[in-house]
Parts: sequence; structure tokens; C-alpha cells
Amino acid sequence: PHIPFSTKNYPEEEMIRRSEEFYKLMDSRRSVRFISEEPVPEEVIDNVIRTAGTSPSGAHTEPWTYVVVKDAETKHKIREIIEEEERMNYMKRMGDKWVKDLKKIRTNWIKEYLDTAPYIILIFKQIYGILANGKKKTHYYNEISVSISCGILLAALQNVGLVTVTSTPLNCGPRLRVLLGRPIHEKLLLLLPVGYPAKDATVPDLKRKPLQDFMVVV
Amino acid sequence: PHIPFSTKNYPEEEMIRRSEEFYKLMDSRRSVRFISEEPVPEEVIDNVIRTAGTSPSGAHTEPWTYVVVKDAETKHKIREIIEEEERMNYMKRMGDKWVKDLKKIRTNWIKEYLDTAPYIILIFKQIYGILANGKKKTHYYNEISVSISCGILLAALQNVGLVTVTSTPLNCGPRLRVLLGRPIHEKLLLLLPVGYPAKDATVPDLKRKPLQDFMVVV
Ligand SMILES: Cc1cc2nc3c(=O)[nH]c(=O)nc-3n(C[C@H](O)[C@H](O)[C@H](O)COP(=O)(O)O)c2cc1C
Ligand SMILES: Cc1cc2nc3c(=O)[nH]c(=O)nc-3n(C[C@H](O)[C@H](O)[C@H](O)COP(=O)(O)O)c2cc1C
Repeated sequence: PHIPFSTKNYPEEEMIRRSEEFYKLMDSRRSVRFISEEPVPEEVIDNVIRTAGTSPSGAHTEPWTYVVVKDAETKHKIREIIEEEERMNYMKRMGDKWVKDLKKIRTNWIKEYLDTAPYIILIFKQIYGILANGKKKTHYYNEISVSISCGILLAALQNVGLVTVTSTPLNCGPRLRVLLGRPIHEKLLLLLPVGYPAKDATVPDLKRKPLQDFMVVV
Repeated sequence: PHIPFSTKNYPEEEMIRRSEEFYKLMDSRRSVRFISEEPVPEEVIDNVIRTAGTSPSGAHTEPWTYVVVKDAETKHKIREIIEEEERMNYMKRMGDKWVKDLKKIRTNWIKEYLDTAPYIILIFKQIYGILANGKKKTHYYNEISVSISCGILLAALQNVGLVTVTSTPLNCGPRLRVLLGRPIHEKLLLLLPVGYPAKDATVPDLKRKPLQDFMVVV
């Protein structure tokens, strides 16, 4: 069944103003790799993840699982797994080029934020679903849908003044999946430590492309 | 060089309130397949795409190209390509299962919104970049980055009261890329018609999973 749909209508001037304000809010987002231990209300975390769950998804499959880790011991185990794998990525697996490409961001395999951040959010994509009758349900475009959902999560975090760094823990997926007891059809896509920035947090002095460098009008 | 970073700090109560309000705003988003011809200020489109460009990206590659089509003739050509391919997807290429999975959303190959929407935004992922010296630059995780950027775009559209339907035009990428004169290293990822909802717009009566069905706390 289909139902009528309408949206809130803003006068043009207000639309323009809202679009500018939201741009400024989002433009002040940065990936932050120094996160304070200061606690964050759990209700806010619930709400930002609820917001991520409003994302569109291919054929409305909602193919995401958000695992929120607040337990200190589990956070530390995650850190151990990631640092061990990352160290190997830097040392052996990846070419010099990868290491060089990352040098300007100055990331390395030490990830203290995995202990200090009050929450680590692990985003799993469900590569298929399981129906009530036990049969598999195809999840069309699950990786795209889950990534879009992550974009909405980032907007929600920014809107409340929390920071994160979007990360893709290379080669850690299987071990983290087992650690967290997630089933085989859930694959780790992204890992986001969440909290307030540390008092002395710094970020790489990167610039963003101006609009005309990534938008084309026809 | 690294620079100091800080964010706006909201008192806890305000954080909670902001997280709820943003949730409500995003939860009122729906994919709309009936779009009005009513014009939309171009400045708003510029701003929402600018906002999408604040997205994080693997190694800060910013691997997205946003093509905004407002020219009626080009929109119509896009419609012709998509309807032709979609018709074949429904008729031949995809299994009965795909057609059945889509039945509850009642989509088919007729896409009038491609003519009526004042803008069609085509989102291309750059699978590699080209350096000043002509060499290729690896774009790590380009599809994830561009999809995250699309999530931020959807939030920005919702924030100004515009609607869209996130779509992945199956098998149309190469023809649309050629139509729009985009280079070979740009691949079409998503296509979003943008505008106000049509007066008589309807949407499928879908429900979203409650939080406990997609969030796990450890
Ligand atoms: C990756 C992706 C691909 C999609 N492809 C299509 C599509 O080709 N055609 C379409 O009508 N809707 C498409 N959708 C929209 C979904 O059907 C829609 O998001 C879902 O039914 C949930 O409805 P909602 O967005 O109103 O919450 C797509 C959504 C995503 C995220
Ligand atoms: C898909 C993806 C993967 C990323 N992986 C990592 C990562 O593993 N480690 C890290 O420190 N940053 C990672 N980042 C963050 C980027 O380095 C960052 O977004 C980019 O440098 C731009 O900086 P900004 O987010 O402050 O604008 C990733 C971002 C994306 C979108």
C-alpha cells in the first residue's frame, strides 16, 4: 500500500539560509585522532545510531548492524587486534606508496583513541539477510547502503559536537567479528571511535577542493 | 603540519535535544518517486553539493564528481537511456526474484521523475586520480567514500525540504558517462533526481527497524 507524502516547505530565503548553515556545520567536521576520555550521554549515542538507521537502502533491506563498544576491556582488545594488524600493514603488506600516501596525514599504527574514546562504533554490512524460514535474502548494494548510512551517522555526530575518525581497519574484519560474536554474514565495513576531542587535539592542515573542482553543471 | 582542533561544546541536555531533533528530521526522509516541476533555487543545490564535499575520504582523495543536470533535453536523454536499460533488466536480465523483491516498493521501468525533477544529480566515483605529472593516483576505498558523501548530501537535502530517490541505474553507467562527457576513470555510482515532492506524491508504506534490531551494545 502507498500513502500520501508531503514535506515541510521552507520559503526560498529560508532554504538558502538553512543550506548555508548546514554547510558550515558540516564543513567544520574533521577526522579527529585524539579523543578525550570524558563520558558522553548514552542517549545521544542511541539517537545518532537511530538516525543512521533512517538511511535509504537497496530494496529497503536495512543491511547494517551497529555494534557500540563501551566496555573498557573489549575496547582494549580491539586496540590490540588493530595495532597488530596495522603494524603488519605498515611493515610488510602494503607498498611504500601506501605508507607515503598516508605520511601527510601522519597516521601510524598506534591508536590510543581506541582506549580513550568512550565508545567505539563498529559498522557491519550484512551481505545477505536471513528470513524467518531460514532462507537467505539478497541484500542488493549492501556496501553502498551501509556507507550512506555512515554518512548520515557522521552528520548526526557533527550536529551534537562529537568527533570521530572514519576508519577501515584493514585485515581486521574477521578477528573483530569473532571478538564481538557477530555472525558470518556480517562483515566489518567501518570503525568509528566516538567522543569529545582531546583538549590538545590536532588535525592535519588539509584543505578541501572548492566546489568548481568537483561539481559540473549541464 | 598539524593544527589545533576544537569543536562547539553543547551542554548535555542540549546535546540530547539536538540529537532527537536531528533524528526526527532525518526520520521524515523518504525516497520519493514523484517529483514536482517547480523550480528550486540553484544556490541551494550548490550548497548541498558543497556540503557533500565536506565528507571524509580515504587518504583525503575526495574521489567524487557531482554532475548536476538541469538542461531539459539532457534530462530526457538520461530518461531514455535508463528506461531502456531498466526495461531490459525487468524483462530479461534479472531473475524473477529481483522483480518480486521490488514489487512491494512498486518500482518499474517508467521514471517520469527524470523529466519532471528540476535537477538530476549524478554521482561518479573516481576510481583513480590523475596527478599533475599525468601519473595515476590510487583512490583507496573510493566507493565507500563516495557513498558516505552521498549520505551527507541526503542529510543536506532533507534539511532544506527537498526530496530525491537514491538510485543505482543498473547497466546504465557507461552510456550515461559518455552522454555527460566524463572521463573513463569516473564510474557512475548513484543517480538522484532532486526537487520538491509532487502535489499527489505517495510513498510505499514501509516501516523502519527499531533500534534494538540493528544496534548491539557491548
Ligand atoms: C544503494 C541504493 C540503491 C537504490 N536503488 C534504487 C533504485 O534503483 N530505484 C528506486 O526506485 N529506489 C532505489 N533505492 C531506494 C530504496 O528502495 C529505498 O531507500 C528503500 O525502499 C527505503 O525507503 P526510504 O528511502 O523511503 O526509507 C535505492 C536505495 C539505495 C540506498
Ligand atoms: C573510507 C575511509 C577510510 C578511512 N580510513 C582511515 C584510516 O584507516 N585511518 C585514519 O586515520 N583515517 C582514515 N580515514 C579518514 C581520512 O583520512 C580523512 O577523512 C581525510 O584525511 C580527510 O580529512 P577530514 O575527514 O578531516 O576531512 C578514512 C576515511 C574514509 C572515508
